Amino acid sequence: MNGVFSRDKVLTIDTMNPTVKNVEYAVRGPIVQRAIQIEKELREGVKKPFTEVIKANIGDAHAMGQQPITFFRQVLALCSYPELLNENMFPEDAKNRARRILQACGGGSVGAYSASQGIDCVRQDVARYIERRDGGVPCDPDNVYLTTGASDGIVTMLKLLVCGEGASRTGVMISIPQYPLYSAALAELGAVQVNYYLNEEKCWSMDLSELERSLAEARKHCNPKALCIINPGNPTGQVQSRQCIEDVIRFAAKERLFLMADEVYQDNVYAEGCQFHSFKKVLFELGPEYSDNVELASFHSTSKCYMGECGFRGGYMEVINMDPEVQAQLSKLVSVRLCPPVPGQALMDLVVNSPQPGEPSHTTFMKERTATLSLLAEKAKLTEQILNTVPGITCNPVQGAMYSFPNISLPEKSIKEAKALGQAPDMFYCMKLLEETGICLVPGSGFGQKDGTYHFRMTILPPTDKLKILLAKVKEFHQKFTQQYS
Amino acid sequence: MNGVFSRDKVLTIDTMNPTVKNVEYAVRGPIVQRAIQIEKELREGVKKPFTEVIKANIGDAHAMGQQPITFFRQVLALCSYPELLNENMFPEDAKNRARRILQACGGGSVGAYSASQGIDCVRQDVARYIERRDGGVPCDPDNVYLTTGASDGIVTMLKLLVCGEGASRTGVMISIPQYPLYSAALAELGAVQVNYYLNEEKCWSMDLSELERSLAEARKHCNPKALCIINPGNPTGQVQSRQCIEDVIRFAAKERLFLMADEVYQDNVYAEGCQFHSFKKVLFELGPEYSDNVELASFHSTSKCYMGECGFRGGYMEVINMDPEVQAQLSKLVSVRLCPPVPGQALMDLVVNSPQPGEPSHTTFMKERTATLSLLAEKAKLTEQILNTVPGITCNPVQGAMYSFPNISLPEKSIKEAKALGQAPDMFYCMKLLEETGICLVPGSGFGQKDGTYHFRMTILPPTDKLKILLAKVKEFHQKFTQQYS
Repeated sequence: MNGVFSRDKVLTIDTMNPTVKNVEYAVRGPIVQRAIQIEKELREGVKKPFTEVIKANIGDAHAMGQQPITFFRQVLALCSYPELLNENMFPEDAKNRARRILQACGGGSVGAYSASQGIDCVRQDVARYIERRDGGVPCDPDNVYLTTGASDGIVTMLKLLVCGEGASRTGVMISIPQYPLYSAALAELGAVQVNYYLNEEKCWSMDLSELERSLAEARKHCNPKALCIINPGNPTGQVQSRQCIEDVIRFAAKERLFLMADEVYQDNVYAEGCQFHSFKKVLFELGPEYSDNVELASFHSTSKCYMGECGFRGGYMEVINMDPEVQAQLSKLVSVRLCPPVPGQALMDLVVNSPQPGEPSHTTFMKERTATLSLLAEKAKLTEQILNTVPGITCNPVQGAMYSFPNISLPEKSIKEAKALGQAPDMFYCMKLLEETGICLVPGSGFGQKDGTYHFRMTILPPTDKLKILLAKVKEFHQKFTQQYS
Repeated sequence: MNGVFSRDKVLTIDTMNPTVKNVEYAVRGPIVQRAIQIEKELREGVKKPFTEVIKANIGDAHAMGQQPITFFRQVLALCSYPELLNENMFPEDAKNRARRILQACGGGSVGAYSASQGIDCVRQDVARYIERRDGGVPCDPDNVYLTTGASDGIVTMLKLLVCGEGASRTGVMISIPQYPLYSAALAELGAVQVNYYLNEEKCWSMDLSELERSLAEARKHCNPKALCIINPGNPTGQVQSRQCIEDVIRFAAKERLFLMADEVYQDNVYAEGCQFHSFKKVLFELGPEYSDNVELASFHSTSKCYMGECGFRGGYMEVINMDPEVQAQLSKLVSVRLCPPVPGQALMDLVVNSPQPGEPSHTTFMKERTATLSLLAEKAKLTEQILNTVPGITCNPVQGAMYSFPNISLPEKSIKEAKALGQAPDMFYCMKLLEETGICLVPGSGFGQKDGTYHFRMTILPPTDKLKILLAKVKEFHQKFTQQYS
C-alpha cells in the first residue's frame, strides 16, 4: 500500500481525453467567469467604478427581464400538479392543453419517461406547425425528434455524420462567425471544422463563391460531408434572403452535402423587408429533384423567439430524406439517453400549438407575444443606431435573432499589448471593458472572424433603459480606449 | 444538375459514424419496439391471446402507477407559475421552497439558463444532503455538478476518461450483468469495455478475485483506467455490503483506477440486514491515505427511489480528489450544453431538501414516501417468492433497486431454434413470452451474463394486482415453454 499516499492522479490533464481539451465555448468562457467573480466582489463591498455587472454575453431572455407567456406557464403548472385542474383559476384552454399532454404521458404523469423520440402527440403537433409555417409542405411526425434544447439535436446529428481518419476524416462546413456550440462539438468529435466566411460588407450574407472556395480548400485534406447554416444568424443577426437559401440548397445538392439548418430564431425577424424562410420550404419549392434528394436536418427550440424559455431545454429537429437505415440508427442512439425532459416537451407542444382565435387565452397570448417581439425589434434598431454613432465601431443592421456583432477598430498599440499578454486583441478589449464598466460582452475571437478584424457579440436583451446605459458606456469606453492606445 | 435526380445519400449506413452502429440499448431495444407495435395492433382490434401489454422492461415508476410526492409537485407548479404564490391553496413550506428556488434563478424565472454546473443554492443543498447522508463527511458544493439525469453525468465522466489508441486505449471496467447505458456509452466513445462478472451464487456480490482476473486480462490489450459500480444493483437488485465496498476501494487504490459509483437507487433498499453505504462514506472511513487520494465520481438522480420522477431528467454527480486542471476541463465541457433542465434542478433540490419535522408538509411527505417504499419492498419480496416457485427459474433476493434478474433454464431444443434464427436464446424466450402473454421483459443478453446462462430483467414496479398476474403468467409460460422444447 506504499504507493497510495502520494500517488499521482489517474486522471490528469495529460492522461485525459485530448479532444475535450480542444473544446472552447466563449459564450461561457473566461470573460464570463471573471464577470461572476466581479459580481461576488461587488457583493462583498469591493469598490469598483460601477455598481452592477450588466451581462450581455448570452441570449438568456428571462434573466434579462423578458416575461414568460402566461398561458405556457399556466399549462406547465397544471401539468406539474394536476390537482389544479379542479380549481377555477385557470382558463379552459389551458386546462384542455394540460389534459391532452397528461393523457399522452405514461400514468398521466410528466414524471414518466416519454418515448425516446418524444411524446407522440407533441411530435404530431410539431408536424402540423411545420406544415402551417411552410404553407402546406407535408411533414411526417416520424421525422420529428424532440430534443433537449436545439444543442442536443445538433450534437446528435454531428455524431451520426463524423467518421474516418486523416484525409478521409469528416469535414463540417460552418459559418464564420459561428455559434461556438458547433466548433465545440466538432472538436469533441474530432471532426474537421471547415470555415466559410460570411460577408460582413453585405450584411453577413452567404456568398456562393466563398462556399466554393472553402469546400475546394477543405477537399484537399478532409472529406466535407455537411454544411451548417444558422438563420437568422447567431452571432451576426442577419436574415438570409430566399435567393441566398436557394443558392445554398443548389450548392449542397451539387456538392453532395448534408444540410443542417439551425433555425431557432425563426420568430426573431425585425428588419423591414426581411422574412424568415425555412430551408425546408425553399427545398420543396425547388421541386422534386431537390425535395426528394437533399438531406436536411433543421432545428428549433423553446429557448429563443418570444418564448425565451432556455431553462426548460425544449426543442425539436426534423430530418428529411434521411436514409431509413441511418434513421433507425438515430432512433437507437437517442434511446440511450431515454428521453428529453418532459416539461420541455410539454412547452415545445404549447409553442407549436398556441392559443387559437376564439379560445379564452388567445387575446392575452397575442398581446404578450407581440409586446415581446416589438420590444426586441425596437432594441435591435436602437443598438444598431447607437453603435454606429461611435467612431471606430461599425454595426450591421440587426435584422433578426438577438445579437449585434459590430466591427471594432483597435489601435495598433492595443493589439501589440494584447499579443504580448497572449490574449486575442478583442478579448483584451472586452476584459478591459468589463473591469472598467461592468459590461460583459463576448469577444469576436470566440466566434471566429476574418484575420485582422475585431468584433464583439452583444445581446439586445437588456431592458431598454439598461440597454441605453450599456450602449452609452460602450461608446464612452471605446473612445477612451482608442485615445489611450493611440 | 444531372446527378441530382437519383443520387445516393450523403449519409448512409456505410458512411455514418461506425461507433454509433456499435451502440446497443436493450432496455428500449427490439422487444420494446415489438411491444409498442402489439399495443397498436390491440387498439386496432387485432385479436391476441391477451387484452393488454404489461411493460416491465424499464424502471418507469409513474408509468406503472406510482404517485408523485405531493410536496414536490406543488413546489414545481409554484415555480412554473409564480402567480400561484398569491393563492392560499399551497402550504407555506412549499411556497418558501419555491421562493428560494426562484430567487436563485436569473430574472426569478425557471425559464432562464442556470450556471452550467447547476444553480448555486441547489448545489449547496446537495452538499448538505450528502454530508447528512454520510454522517458528516464534508462535501464541497464546488464538487457537485447538476446533470440531466444520472446518464448525462456518467457519459460526461466517461468522455473525460477515454483516450488513446490500440493497446493504450482506455479500458473501463463494468459489472456483468450491467446497465446498458455503460456499454452504449463506451461503444460510442470507442473505449474498451472490460467485463467483471458479479457472483450470481453469492447474490450478485463482487468478488475481489474476479476483479483481479478481469483487470489482469484487460491489461494485456488496453489501459484500464476506471471501475464502475452500480449499487444497489441494476439489473441485479443486490445491495453491496460495507466490506465489499471497502475491498473495492482498496483494489481501486492499489490498481490506480478511477471509481465511478452509480448510486441512483440509494433509497431503494428492502432486504433485512441490508443497508446502503455510499462509496464516499466508506472511502472516508478508510482514512486519509484513501480519502485524500482515490478519485471518485458518484451519481444520483430524481428518477428512482421514492420519487420516480424520470421525466424531469434531474440528477447530480459529486467528484472527489479530481485533479483541479481536469475539473476545470469538466466545468468547461458542461458549459457547452449550457445547463441541465432547470425544473429538474428544482426537483433535485426538493429531494435533497425535503420537508422537515415541524413544517406543514412533513407528515404527508413522510406518509407518501414510506408508502411508496413499503410497497416496493413488498413487491420485491413477492417477485422473488413467486419466481422461485417455478421449476427452472432461480431468483436471487431483490435486496434493492427495482428489478429482479432471475436465472432461467432453457431447454436445448429452444437454444438451437433461437440460434438458427440468429437470436440470443433469452431474446427468443422473451419475444415468445411477449407474443403469447403480452408481457414485456428484457432478455439477460441485453445486460450481459455468463456464457451459457440465461436471464431476464423484470421491474417490480407494476401495481401489486398486475404484478401477481404478470408473475402467474410468466410461471405458466415458462412451464409451457419448457414442455414444448423438451
